[in-house]
Amino acid sequence: MNLYREMERAALLEEYSRERARFERFAAQKLRIDMSRGKPGDDQLYLSTSILNTVTDETGYLTEEGFDCRNYGTLTGLSECKRLFAEILELHTDNIIVGGNSSLQLMFDYITQCLTKGVSSCPAWSKQGKIRFLCPAPGYDRHFAICEYYGIDMINIDMNADGPDVKMIEEYVKDESVKGMFCVPKYSNPQGITYSNEVVKRIAALKPAAKDFRIIWDDAYCVHDFTDNPDKLLSIYPELVKNGNEDMVVQFASTSKMTFPGAGVAVIGTSKRNIEEISKRLFYQIISYDKINQLRHARYFKDLSGLKKHMKLHAEILKPKFSVVLDTLDKELSGKGIVSYNIPSGGYFISLDVIEGSALRVGGLCKEVGLKLTSVGATYPYGIDPFDRNIRIAPTYPPIDELKTAAEILCVSVKLACLEAMLNEK
Amino acid sequence: MNLYREMERAALLEEYSRERARFERFAAQKLRIDMSRGKPGDDQLYLSTSILNTVTDETGYLTEEGFDCRNYGTLTGLSECKRLFAEILELHTDNIIVGGNSSLQLMFDYITQCLTKGVSSCPAWSKQGKIRFLCPAPGYDRHFAICEYYGIDMINIDMNADGPDVKMIEEYVKDESVKGMFCVPKYSNPQGITYSNEVVKRIAALKPAAKDFRIIWDDAYCVHDFTDNPDKLLSIYPELVKNGNEDMVVQFASTSKMTFPGAGVAVIGTSKRNIEEISKRLFYQIISYDKINQLRHARYFKDLSGLKKHMKLHAEILKPKFSVVLDTLDKELSGKGIVSYNIPSGGYFISLDVIEGSALRVGGLCKEVGLKLTSVGATYPYGIDPFDRNIRIAPTYPPIDELKTAAEILCVSVKLACLEAMLNEK
Repeated sequence: MNLYREMERAALLEEYSRERARFERFAAQKLRIDMSRGKPGDDQLYLSTSILNTVTDETGYLTEEGFDCRNYGTLTGLSECKRLFAEILELHTDNIIVGGNSSLQLMFDYITQCLTKGVSSCPAWSKQGKIRFLCPAPGYDRHFAICEYYGIDMINIDMNADGPDVKMIEEYVKDESVKGMFCVPKYSNPQGITYSNEVVKRIAALKPAAKDFRIIWDDAYCVHDFTDNPDKLLSIYPELVKNGNEDMVVQFASTSKMTFPGAGVAVIGTSKRNIEEISKRLFYQIISYDKINQLRHARYFKDLSGLKKHMKLHAEILKPKFSVVLDTLDKELSGKGIVSYNIPSGGYFISLDVIEGSALRVGGLCKEVGLKLTSVGATYPYGIDPFDRNIRIAPTYPPIDELKTAAEILCVSVKLACLEAMLNEK
Repeated sequence: MNLYREMERAALLEEYSRERARFERFAAQKLRIDMSRGKPGDDQLYLSTSILNTVTDETGYLTEEGFDCRNYGTLTGLSECKRLFAEILELHTDNIIVGGNSSLQLMFDYITQCLTKGVSSCPAWSKQGKIRFLCPAPGYDRHFAICEYYGIDMINIDMNADGPDVKMIEEYVKDESVKGMFCVPKYSNPQGITYSNEVVKRIAALKPAAKDFRIIWDDAYCVHDFTDNPDKLLSIYPELVKNGNEDMVVQFASTSKMTFPGAGVAVIGTSKRNIEEISKRLFYQIISYDKINQLRHARYFKDLSGLKKHMKLHAEILKPKFSVVLDTLDKELSGKGIVSYNIPSGGYFISLDVIEGSALRVGGLCKEVGLKLTSVGATYPYGIDPFDRNIRIAPTYPPIDELKTAAEILCVSVKLACLEAMLNEK
C-alpha cells in the first residue's frame, strides 16, 4: 500500500496496466448492475408482507375511535398512526399530520404552499423576488430538484464530519432572501453523517433575517440503524422551543424504507401553528389520505418498540451489504491517498470522495462495464459537484454477490481515473 | 294538491299549523341524521372488501410486466391500471396518468401547476394578473373552494337541463383573463344532469381567447348509474381532436365511489402534451404513487365489464335510497308549486330548488330537528346561492329507515319555509 502521489511514474504505469487488465475482464462479462438509487432489496420487501393482512374483513376496518377508515374523513390522519409517528419523532400527536405514501410529496407540497400562499402573515415567497435556499452538500438530489423546479437559488453549504457548517449557515441567514434550508439530519444522504448535538442546537438557535425562513428537516433515516452502536440524533423540537423558534423547522419522515417504498405512509411533524397552516391547505387539496394504509401501519408496528424490532430485520440484511462495499473499499483503496469516505452506522448510502476532478471519469468507467451509479454530480445543487469528486454508493438494492462485483468495479475505476489524472500531470 | 300561491291566507295558515305540528313531533325525537356529504353507506363499503385479498404473498406483487409494485418506480402508474382507466374514459393508455387516492388532489395539484409554472409556453397564471374561472352552478363546492383558495375569480354559469349554458360560456371565453372552467359532465353534482351531446360538442369546439384555457372535466360519476336506462355521456376527447383542441380539457376520475372513498385510485386523462407537462411536474413531486393499491384495483376489476358488474351492486343499494327520497318529495311536495328537482339516473345527489329566498331557512329548520344538510349556498361559488333556493340532498350515506325520516323532515321544512315566506308577503 503506497500513496500514489509518492510513487514513480513507472510504478504508476505498472499499477495502471494491472488495473486496466482487471477492468477489461469485467468488461468482458457484460454485466448490468444498478447501484444508482436508495432502493430496498427484494429480501427487504418480504419482511413486511404480512402488513397486508392487518386490515381485512376478519380484523375489521374501524380505528381505535370507531371510525371506519374505508370511508371519507379524517384529514390529518388516524390517531393510532399519529401516535406511532409522534413516538418516532419525539413529538406530541398534536404536532403530527399523517399523509400519503410519499414524504417527497409532502415536502414539495409544503414548499409550493410557501411559494403560493406564504408563511403565516408574510407575503408569498413567489412575491418576494429572488429567494434562496441553503443546501448542505453533498445532499439529496430530489431536494435540490424541488428548488430547481421552482427557480429557488441554491447555496452550497459545506458538510463537516458533524453535519453542515453552521458558521456558514449563520452568516447566510442574515440575508432576508434566504428562505430555507434542506437537512437530512440523521445518516445524511449520501454521507451517512448524523448531525452532532452542537450542530442541532446551533441550527435550532438560528435567528434568520427572514421571518418566513423554514427548514425542511427530512428525517428519512430516523430508525434506519444497522450497527449495534447507532447514531443518536438530538431531537430538535425541544431546542426550537427553548429558542422561541418552534415554527422554523418542519420535520418529515416516511415508512418507505420500513415497509414498502411504493406503498408506505409519510408524515409531517411541526409546531401547532405550522400544523394549522398546512391543514388549512390540505382542506382544499384532499378529502383524506389513504387511511386503510395508515391503519395497516399502525396495527402492524403497534409502537416504536415494535417498529425497532422490525428495523433490526432490515439491519440484518443491510449490514452485510454495507460491509461488502466498505471492506472492498478498504482493501483496494486504503493507503493510496486517493479517496476518503465515512463509515455510516445506518442509512442507505456510502459517500466516496475521490481526488478532485476524477468523479465524472469514475462514473464513465463504471458505465462502460455495466455498473450504473447515481449520476455523478447529482449529490450537489444543479447536478454540479464543484470539485468533481463525490460518488454516491447505494449498496442496498443489488444482491450481495453482485454487490461484491460492483464494489470491485468501482474500486478499479477509481484507481484508473486517479492514475490517469496523475499520469497526465506528471 | 293545491298550488300554494293560489291558496287563501286561512288555508295557508291551516297548512302551516299542520306541518308545524309534524315538525314538533320530529323535534321531540331528538334525531341526528347526516345527509350532508356524498359518502357511500356502510353496506356499499362491504361490496369491495375482497379487493384487499388481490395483492398478497399468494398472488404475488409483480405487475403484468414483471415489475415489483412494492418498490420505488413507475411514476405515471401501472400499465394494467392505465388500461382499466383508459377503457373507462375511452382514451388510449398513453393519455392516462394513474395517481394516488384522491382526484381532488390531482385537480388541486394541476391548478397549482398552471398557477406556478403556466400552461405550455404561456406565462404562469399567477403572473397574468387577475384570472377567472367559469363555474357552472349549482356545482361541486370543493371545485369552487380551490378557486377561492387561490384567489381565482369565479363566474357563475347557469345550468340548464342539458348542461351548462354554452352560450354564456362562449361569450365569457372571449375574455383572455378567463383561464378555465370546472365541469362534472355526467350526473353533475348536485343536479344529476348529464351534458347533452350538443353541449359536449360545443364545449369541445370553444375557441377561447386565452391560449392557456383549461377545462377541469371531473368525470366523478362516469360509471355510477343506478337505473336501467343510464345516461350516456358523449366522450369529449374525439370531439376535441376534431377541433384541434385536444389540450384544452383535462379529465379526472377516481374509484372513490367504486371501492373505498378513503383508499381508492384516482386518474388523469388528457392529451399527450398535457400528460408530458404533468409528468414533468410529478417527477419533482413524488417518486411514485401507491402502486400496490393500483395493482389491487386492476386485478379486482380486470376490465370495464368487471367494473360495470361491480357498479350494479352499488346500484342495487343506491336505487332504493334515491327512490325513498324522490317518492317522498313527490308525495309531499308535488303540485304545490314550491319546488323543482331533477330525477337523476345516477350519481350521488338530488338537487332541490325551493322558492327563492327560502333555502337558508329550510337548512335552519332541518338543523333544528337534527338533520344535517350540505350547507345551503355551498353549491354556488363563494358559498352564496344568488337566489337562495338550492338544496343539495345526499341520500347515499344514511340507512334507508333514517333516510325516510330525513326526507320527511326535509319536506316539512320546505313547506314551512315556503309558507312562512308566503304568509309574510300576504
